[in-house]
Amino acid sequence: MKALHYTEVEPQEVYGIPGVTVRWLTGKKEGAPNFAFRIFEMEPGAVIPSHQHDWEHEVFVLAGEGLVGVDGEERPLKEGDFVLIPPGASHKFINTGNGVFRFICVIPLKGDTRP
Amino acid sequence: MKALHYTEVEPQEVYGIPGVTVRWLTGKKEGAPNFAFRIFEMEPGAVIPSHQHDWEHEVFVLAGEGLVGVDGEERPLKEGDFVLIPPGASHKFINTGNGVFRFICVIPLKGDTRP
Repeated sequence: MKALHYTEVEPQEVYGIPGVTVRWLTGKKEGAPNFAFRIFEMEPGAVIPSHQHDWEHEVFVLAGEGLVGVDGEERPLKEGDFVLIPPGASHKFINTGNGVFRFICVIPLKGDTRP
Repeated sequence: MKALHYTEVEPQEVYGIPGVTVRWLTGKKEGAPNFAFRIFEMEPGAVIPSHQHDWEHEVFVLAGEGLVGVDGEERPLKEGDFVLIPPGASHKFINTGNGVFRFICVIPLKGDTRP
């Protein structure tokens, strides 16, 4: 079976945004059949600016406190919160807490545009 | 946006297996475009017996201690572990700890066979 602890995966930069990393637990190159499973970490104060894709995100918060904005609507986030960001919706994330803001983000494979 | 805390979703029985529940955070009827996002909880000693589907599972452990078996290979699981169970693989789960064993399980929508 393919199994690992998420910390075994090397964190990577996300579009060069300061204080933001992503770990791809599975995706195209790892042999996922249909969707990619990633874990993002944002340092306190870090911001993923508003942007959009043609595919959805299914987000689940593992730790910390943050804020999500979807098409201009904002909501605070804490551990155990789930958000479905529809395809095409503009969205942003901010770490509003004092510790790491860590969340899962699952996307269909067509969103795995890693080189 | 669609957002909620996972505890806002009513837990449901899983094939009548004692000590096992599932919460569907999103799926077909909730408007997920491509994949369903569920959270399973198993009481201490609970067992999901070996079975198989034509679709994959992407599993991430949130809390507790368990064991996964995939095609006869077994592995202990703890918080932060990730497992990709390929389509067609036989698989089982056991809560081997003293507390709730809680994990995320993401599947493609064709696996959402709820009535």
